[in-house]
Amino acid sequence: AASASPPFHAASPSSSPTPAYDAWCGVAHGCTRKLGMKICGFLQKNNSLDEKNRIASSFRDRQTPKNQLSCENSDREARYRRTETDFSNLFARDLLPAKNGEEPTMQFLLEVMDILTNYVRKTFDRSTKVLDFHHPHQLLEGMEGFNLELSDQPESLEQILVDCRDTLKYGVRTGHPRFFNQLSSGLDIIGLAGEWLTSTANTNMFTYEIAPVFVLMEQLTLKKMREMIGWPNGEGDGLFSPGECPTIPSKLISFPLTGGVKTKGMSAAPRLVLFTSEHSHYSITKAGAALGFGKENVILLSTDERGRVIPADLEAKIISVKQKGYHPLFVNATAGTTVYGAFDPINEIADICEKYNLWLHVDGAWGGGLLMSRQHRHKLNGVERANSVTWNPHKMMGVPLQCSAILVREKGILQGCNSMCAGYLFQPDKQYDVTYDTGDKAIQCGRHVDIFKFWLMWKAKGTTGFEEHIDRCLELSEYLYNKIKDREGYEMVFEGQPQHTNVCFWYIPPGLRDMPPGDERRERLHKVAPKIKAMMMESGTTMVGYQPQGNKVNFFRMVVSNHAVTRSDIDFLIDEIERLGNDL
Amino acid sequence: AASASPPFHAASPSSSPTPAYDAWCGVAHGCTRKLGMKICGFLQKNNSLDEKNRIASSFRDRQTPKNQLSCENSDREARYRRTETDFSNLFARDLLPAKNGEEPTMQFLLEVMDILTNYVRKTFDRSTKVLDFHHPHQLLEGMEGFNLELSDQPESLEQILVDCRDTLKYGVRTGHPRFFNQLSSGLDIIGLAGEWLTSTANTNMFTYEIAPVFVLMEQLTLKKMREMIGWPNGEGDGLFSPGECPTIPSKLISFPLTGGVKTKGMSAAPRLVLFTSEHSHYSITKAGAALGFGKENVILLSTDERGRVIPADLEAKIISVKQKGYHPLFVNATAGTTVYGAFDPINEIADICEKYNLWLHVDGAWGGGLLMSRQHRHKLNGVERANSVTWNPHKMMGVPLQCSAILVREKGILQGCNSMCAGYLFQPDKQYDVTYDTGDKAIQCGRHVDIFKFWLMWKAKGTTGFEEHIDRCLELSEYLYNKIKDREGYEMVFEGQPQHTNVCFWYIPPGLRDMPPGDERRERLHKVAPKIKAMMMESGTTMVGYQPQGNKVNFFRMVVSNHAVTRSDIDFLIDEIERLGNDL
Repeated sequence: AASASPPFHAASPSSSPTPAYDAWCGVAHGCTRKLGMKICGFLQKNNSLDEKNRIASSFRDRQTPKNQLSCENSDREARYRRTETDFSNLFARDLLPAKNGEEPTMQFLLEVMDILTNYVRKTFDRSTKVLDFHHPHQLLEGMEGFNLELSDQPESLEQILVDCRDTLKYGVRTGHPRFFNQLSSGLDIIGLAGEWLTSTANTNMFTYEIAPVFVLMEQLTLKKMREMIGWPNGEGDGLFSPGECPTIPSKLISFPLTGGVKTKGMSAAPRLVLFTSEHSHYSITKAGAALGFGKENVILLSTDERGRVIPADLEAKIISVKQKGYHPLFVNATAGTTVYGAFDPINEIADICEKYNLWLHVDGAWGGGLLMSRQHRHKLNGVERANSVTWNPHKMMGVPLQCSAILVREKGILQGCNSMCAGYLFQPDKQYDVTYDTGDKAIQCGRHVDIFKFWLMWKAKGTTGFEEHIDRCLELSEYLYNKIKDREGYEMVFEGQPQHTNVCFWYIPPGLRDMPPGDERRERLHKVAPKIKAMMMESGTTMVGYQPQGNKVNFFRMVVSNHAVTRSDIDFLIDEIERLGNDL
Repeated sequence: AASASPPFHAASPSSSPTPAYDAWCGVAHGCTRKLGMKICGFLQKNNSLDEKNRIASSFRDRQTPKNQLSCENSDREARYRRTETDFSNLFARDLLPAKNGEEPTMQFLLEVMDILTNYVRKTFDRSTKVLDFHHPHQLLEGMEGFNLELSDQPESLEQILVDCRDTLKYGVRTGHPRFFNQLSSGLDIIGLAGEWLTSTANTNMFTYEIAPVFVLMEQLTLKKMREMIGWPNGEGDGLFSPGECPTIPSKLISFPLTGGVKTKGMSAAPRLVLFTSEHSHYSITKAGAALGFGKENVILLSTDERGRVIPADLEAKIISVKQKGYHPLFVNATAGTTVYGAFDPINEIADICEKYNLWLHVDGAWGGGLLMSRQHRHKLNGVERANSVTWNPHKMMGVPLQCSAILVREKGILQGCNSMCAGYLFQPDKQYDVTYDTGDKAIQCGRHVDIFKFWLMWKAKGTTGFEEHIDRCLELSEYLYNKIKDREGYEMVFEGQPQHTNVCFWYIPPGLRDMPPGDERRERLHKVAPKIKAMMMESGTTMVGYQPQGNKVNFFRMVVSNHAVTRSDIDFLIDEIERLGNDL
């Protein structure tokens, strides 16, 4: 509420007088002759409504606005300067490809850019709130000129700019150093630039024909990832496929849907059984249902108290399933569970998969990033024995959403599973090497370009940069763990140093500390995290996730994946929990 | 090759001397006192390497660069001006959240913005090539300082900027008025701004908690779309789900995977059969295979010579399948096929679906946009009788990629199909109305925010703006159809005015015009479109798709969905085909 009101922010859609713009533009005092570029403009301040209308209409009259100095700009790389533009009389139809649409287009985009760079800047400023919470009905009713309803008639570009600003204002700053709510957090500047570019290129990963550079970047990046997994020479296959979490679409692809099942469907197959940890991501079960395996045929494996699969339990369940005459098909080992951050013992699971000839998938959506760290990659030992691996750089590695890779050891299997050879896309008679037309490998036809931001970040940081990022986040979670493990008012959900950045804990308000164990304490404790979380959101100071797990009542799950986080932010979180929870 | 070389473009990654920047910045000549903002800067040109290193190191020394006038900027909405920044000694680690990272971050983002706005500007300029084609091996070998390989060590921000520029340079301008290659084309400025904002917000459609504004925008927009479909009061459900073309993930959702199949899997179900046009999108068959129905159980329906399903064939095939004891489940009616742009007769198909109690899905991925046009929406008559509809605004409506909606008539069915209730995301004990936590409806867990650009475009254009866009594109294709239908050297693939913007035709080079029909002519004609297309790509002048269909040899499929296209571009395409194909 105390945030500075931007110049056009105060404007209500149509009624109030057009507010002043903070107008400026540069003055020409020379030119960089070397580049044959002449720069001109002038500083002005001119806010009268009549004058602004005149400027706007002059755009539509296809004349150079009279109050701008004419600017000979022969250089094709000429840069646009922001000028005072009245957007209240400009509409989408005045922008490119409209005749004389270039100037208003550039001014509009510069204005948008200004909104975005201000947002970025403030996101890193700890005096900015993480969120400005409102209930759905409040936003639906409309907030001071921010109206979500769509209408038949166009709105002015001024209103569109207000809408952009307000959309950010009432959203959540996932890049804020005190946003700990999801596995994905942070706002990487290089990644952001990469996403902007991707949006501007506005193409699709179908074919080399329409995404030549991106297709090659994907190929090279996937090879590097396979090298880090440890597959010989980085051989194999893979693709980036949308879907957060252990990514259902990636999962779909990883299932060996070859041969009879692809053609005849599941009802022709024996009853196929999949195995995954009771702590594994719910997307595994979801995929099982969607793919027609059925939820009942996804068997959950028991874990130790740290949330790691017990290999003996896997073997016992395989044997039991076989005795019933069903067909064990697939084991998912999780490298970094969602809540505990547990790493299943991949080598022991791989031994069992080899013994019974099962497909081994490693879900490294959250934990895969640790492969970049010489210090932590041992937690995934055995990953090179997997048939397929999921790895989401948008989680632990701070790549903007979304960026999820599925990697498979055997070349050609993706094509074999998913290819339907659509003639109108994947013509064999092209002039270039059509093995680069990767679209047919994916289960969905078109794919958003998720590679560029990741490739650009890798270029800009180097492998060592990702390693530093991973190590730093794990150090911060160790700091948190050490800070609270013996602190009064805290109980850890599981004992010992977490394997990943996940630190799971209960905060016990003073009023509950002396209560005897039992249902009443459990019930009261179950309500503590939700209440604290609600207050955090109302005050907008920080956000952290909570959930129950098994028979454990609601607890906080703290994770760190944002490189903007410092120890002081960890301290702040603890202080805030205590401040808000003290009287519960 | 003739394109203007940008200042830092000539820099090879490490060896050549740092090139000159086209440096400029504004001169302070006043301040807009009303806003309490003081603007300053000065025009400079200073390219010596020493000086640049000094500037760069001054960033790291946490001092204001000495060659900038100090600029008191008390306003929190202060705008950054581009200054001459030496990026060759700056790295990703110098950007935010680094200490004193704000200035280099803003300068870097402004530089990126400059690259992007220049790209946008040139995309609309017909003197710019559509693409600068290179073979995969050429790009892989590296082009003048553009090296795709990733390394362990970071690259300078200067190199990152070069990479951004080169990525665009060697890509394909899908927004160019002469790019006709895909159903999705064009570069809508409002949509682009929306995508930039979405990237900056960097959140996920999981929950209201982390995407409050976007979740509400999605809900309101889907309701408007359901109203346009004609479902009473816009009731029903839906979501935006990634995936180009008739969107596999959308398809997955639309299958009624409830009850027994969800739990027990497909092997417990009877043999289920799906029906779709032989002209329908390949994703239907792909989904059928992936979902475990099996390719054999996706039955293709015969079409008339315009590519529309023959309802009597559907009924005959349903009866035949039932006689075999199988269970007919699902009919897909296509509203706008990919190649012919044909609209299946939905009302007649709906009659049959009602008679046999089948799920009716309308794939309006390509044709759904016509619902926005009072002139053309009759082509989808009967769509209101569908159980589910796919509609991709990123195709005919010019929304940036990707933006695909699945809409269902019955409320609650998405939840019923896909929900797995992950406790750590979808806590029931939140302080707000958790029915807004829509993530559990989707088959994938996280979803990219695809709604904002569409919502913003709708605001900016109004429904009437989309209508004008649709009508205009259809008029242009009518212009093309009328131009070539009787023109020497052209044969239409099907007779009569196309229903959508798809105009399918053969160009017959003079050397083939007198050949008698027969295999030799067919073989030669089959090679014409690929050869012309390859030459188009080499010359970079235009791009249009081709494919064979059934027993028809390769033909061109022209489509228009870009609002930058004019009749002159259509004329250009025809001239270009004739120029390139004349001697074949």
